[in-house]
Parts: sequence; C-alpha cells; structure tokens
Amino acid sequence: MTQNASRKIRVTKVFSDAYVDKTDALAIEEPLEIRLQFGMHDQRATKNVSVTMRTPGNDIELAAGFLFTEGIVKFADDIAGIDHCFVACSENKENIVQVSLKEWVVPNLQNTERNFYTTSSCGVCGKGSINAIRTVSSFSNADDHFTISSGMLYGLPAVLEQQQAVFADTGGLHASALFSPEGELIMVKEDVGRHNALDKLIGAALLSGRLPLNRSILLLSGRASFELVQKAAMAGICIIASVGAPSSLAVELAEEFNITLAGFLRGNRFNIYTATHRILLPIHENTH
Amino acid sequence: MTQNASRKIRVTKVFSDAYVDKTDALAIEEPLEIRLQFGMHDQRATKNVSVTMRTPGNDIELAAGFLFTEGIVKFADDIAGIDHCFVACSENKENIVQVSLKEWVVPNLQNTERNFYTTSSCGVCGKGSINAIRTVSSFSNADDHFTISSGMLYGLPAVLEQQQAVFADTGGLHASALFSPEGELIMVKEDVGRHNALDKLIGAALLSGRLPLNRSILLLSGRASFELVQKAAMAGICIIASVGAPSSLAVELAEEFNITLAGFLRGNRFNIYTATHRILLPIHENTH
Repeated sequence: MTQNASRKIRVTKVFSDAYVDKTDALAIEEPLEIRLQFGMHDQRATKNVSVTMRTPGNDIELAAGFLFTEGIVKFADDIAGIDHCFVACSENKENIVQVSLKEWVVPNLQNTERNFYTTSSCGVCGKGSINAIRTVSSFSNADDHFTISSGMLYGLPAVLEQQQAVFADTGGLHASALFSPEGELIMVKEDVGRHNALDKLIGAALLSGRLPLNRSILLLSGRASFELVQKAAMAGICIIASVGAPSSLAVELAEEFNITLAGFLRGNRFNIYTATHRILLPIHENTH
Repeated sequence: MTQNASRKIRVTKVFSDAYVDKTDALAIEEPLEIRLQFGMHDQRATKNVSVTMRTPGNDIELAAGFLFTEGIVKFADDIAGIDHCFVACSENKENIVQVSLKEWVVPNLQNTERNFYTTSSCGVCGKGSINAIRTVSSFSNADDHFTISSGMLYGLPAVLEQQQAVFADTGGLHASALFSPEGELIMVKEDVGRHNALDKLIGAALLSGRLPLNRSILLLSGRASFELVQKAAMAGICIIASVGAPSSLAVELAEEFNITLAGFLRGNRFNIYTATHRILLPIHENTH
C-alpha cells in the first residue's frame, strides 16, 4: 500500500514457559483531518469536517471517498483541488488533507452534523437511518441483470489474502477489495479502520471516473456493518461479499437498496442474506 | 446479554455444489442517541451529544460510559438521572437515552466537537491526540505494584469465548471483559461496535462505583486501537490484553500512560508491547 503503513518495534514474545525479545511490525494509526474549502470568490470558508484515525497512504482517496460516501460532495467534478495541506499549514501537513470545491458548489454540510441517522419519520431508528441514506444517494443499486456464479466467489478471499500478505505483516489492517464480474482483482485498499479502507477504495473510483460501481463485486475482509453497506450503496455497488458476519441493519439496508449481500465467505461456503437473484446457485438444492 | 442482541432471519446457505434455505441469527445493530440535559433550574438545556450504532442492551451503561470515556462527565455523582427517554419522547424511546446532570455540573462539551484529537502543540498528530487525553483523564495508570503471571493470561480468551457462546451465535459481536488479578471473570459486555462494548463495561463500573479499574485486567476480543486504549486509560486500567493486533498509536498511548499492553493472546502465546514489568515472565529466557 505504502511505505508508511507499518512500523517496526521491539516486543517481548511470551510462549508457554519461555520468552524472547524480538522485532515485530505494527500497523500505523495516525489522525487525519479533512478540511473543506468552499464558497464564492471573496467569501471562501474553510471547515474541518472530520478527524479520523487512519493508516497513512491513499489520504487523497480517503478524503474524496469520505466526502462522497457521507453525501457531502456529489461529483468528482465538484472538486477543484485536493491535496495535503502544503501551503496553509506549517506543521503536520501529512495529517491534513484540504479539499477545495469549485466556487458554485454548495457542500451538504448537514451530513457532517451528528444527526445523519435521524429523520423526522421515526426519530432515531434503523428505518430512519436507511431513509436518510436514500435522500443523499445518487446511484441506483437496481441492476438486476448483473449476475455472478456462486463458484467464482469462493476464490476471492484467497486473492485478497495474498495481496494483504504482500503489504501487511501486522495482523492489524482491514481491507476492502473490488473484483470484476470474472473474479479479477481491480483494487485493494487497507486501513486500521474498515470504514477508511472502503472510503479509500470508493474515493479512488470517484477520482478515476469509475463510479457507479454497479458491475463490480466488493469484498470486505471483516464483518459487514450498516456503515459499510451505506458507503457501498452510495457508490452504486450491487454485490457485497464479506468474510465475516453482517449485522441486522446491514441486512435491512441491503434489502431496501436491492443490494446482494453475502457473508461468512470462507472456504467453499457462504450465506446469502439479500437479493439472491444475482448469484447463480448450484443446481443441486439440498433439502435436508 | 439481552433478549434483543440477536434476531433470526432466513438465509440461503451455499456450500460447494449445493445450497439450502435455513434460519440463522444476526447481531442486532440499531442507532442510539445520547442526550444530555444540563444547566441551572430555569435554564436547562438538552443537547444531542452522540448517535452511535449499537446492539441494544446495557444502553444506560453505554451512555454513562460514553460520557465518561469521552471526558464529558467526570463522576458518577454528577449524574442526577439516566434512562430511556420515556417522558419527553413518544416514539423510539428505546433508541434514546437521556442523561440528566445535577444543576451545578458543567459538562465538558468541547470534547463532543470533532477536534478531540487536535491540540495546539502539534496540530493534528498522534502525539497531540495523546496529550489531549492527558488533559481530561482523572485517574493515574501508574500502579506498578499490580502484577500478574504470564501463565494466568493464557486462560482468559477461553473464558471469554465460553461466555460469548452463551450469548451470541451470530459471529457478529465484539466483547470487552474484565478479570480479577486471579483471572476470575468480573463482567463481559458485547456489541457490534467494539468501542460500545468497552463503553458498556466502563459505564457499568462507573455506575456501580468500581472506578478506577487499576486492579483489573481488560480483555478485548479483537484488535487494540487507539480509541480502545484511550477509553481504558480514562478508567484507570493498568493491564490490557487483546486477542488481536494493536496499532502503532495504541502502543504509543499505552507507553505514555504506563499501561501494560499485551496483544495476539492466543493459545499459550502473547506479545507484550509496553510496561512489561507488570507481567511476571517465565524464568526461562529463550535467546535463540
């Protein structure tokens, strides 16, 4: 991923009735501040919209992805410039990314207030959280002609693991990966925070003009939470497979958005929770 | 944990060349809004300080723990009342907890703004994040006379797994557990969010007058991030063991606060990253 994703330190390794001092690698975690600059010529404002704990690397993509998946910025074309804060900041510029919007673009800053999951329909509830996402999502996830074979899914975690072995010997990084309908790896992003790994991936797709991702498969290295399915929904993703378990609200959101959600993808097994029609099942139905 | 921690749904289980429709359990994820009521008699204000995605159950402890570990409220005695929002709210009262402070208590709401990790010393950086915590922490983590044996740690994950097997068959819940110096389980809290599981645990300790937890061992079911070590530091915890990997900033924070941090606790093995002196090592040093 990057030369800065891990760091060597001294640790004491204890095992059974012995111990030894050794060098080991840790996944790096550092804060990243995302600053948004917007407004007309003589009335430009700068607002800190987020501080997230992330693994350095792909910071530009992370900032773009965060603004997009949180519904603050809608199009790559709204962005005039995006970079580490080289000019305005003398210190810690590697931990600040400033995103400058074009003059006529009005960011949806309502979504940075902490009421993103609250709507008037029900106050605070899962249903309201789902509805809130519907109002800011640009893409449809209704592409029902995109299908894949169940057998193809089996092989994806091994491809991801192989990629992760190259980049991280820390055991501490989550990954999000994008695959083609044929099961070919398109990209992998890693982070100590799983939401950051997905924002990096979606941000990279946004900045390279690949959105919507309605003909790709998203693979998550861990569990599938509401937040991850929300971000995938924003990017128009139709098929999500996770190595870990999904939550109840992740399944409800996938159901509402017609997203195929598979979980516990391990060995030659997985569960399908929603929109089963996109995965071509084996012909043999086991009725026992 | 609670009757509402999981829910049954229909899933399609695919394996090798067959599939079958079955019932399976999912970990429940629903938003919880934490509202703070404070101020003098005729000038009471109510502020929404957080919406977090959590697994229902121990909501009172979660709210109390969140306010404490984020440095917003310092003592259990500051709280006049804490309950689901039965009176003021007609809908979704199960997803709102209102915490009412005593009249003379001024909450530190600065910490609810998103600049908790930013200090003037360095702008945005790991060091600044650590310093920001020092300013709000009430307890010392400097109890160097509290020691445990390395052999005792080996058995803790099995005790936790046994507890988790009773409560959750979803594969989707993180856990935080507290153990006595002799390795006896004191309590376990679970949640889809690992920060919530720890807030529930610390909140329960706060409300039952157990803080500081300087003579207990905290076991984390997953990885040790900065955020989790931060919350543990706020509660005065001196020994943290995690089943998964720590991040670089988790190790730095533990080092600065003189907290013993062990990771990769699996089978008869673990690594010690900081404050090694609290774990009595086997006599045999392996020099190979």
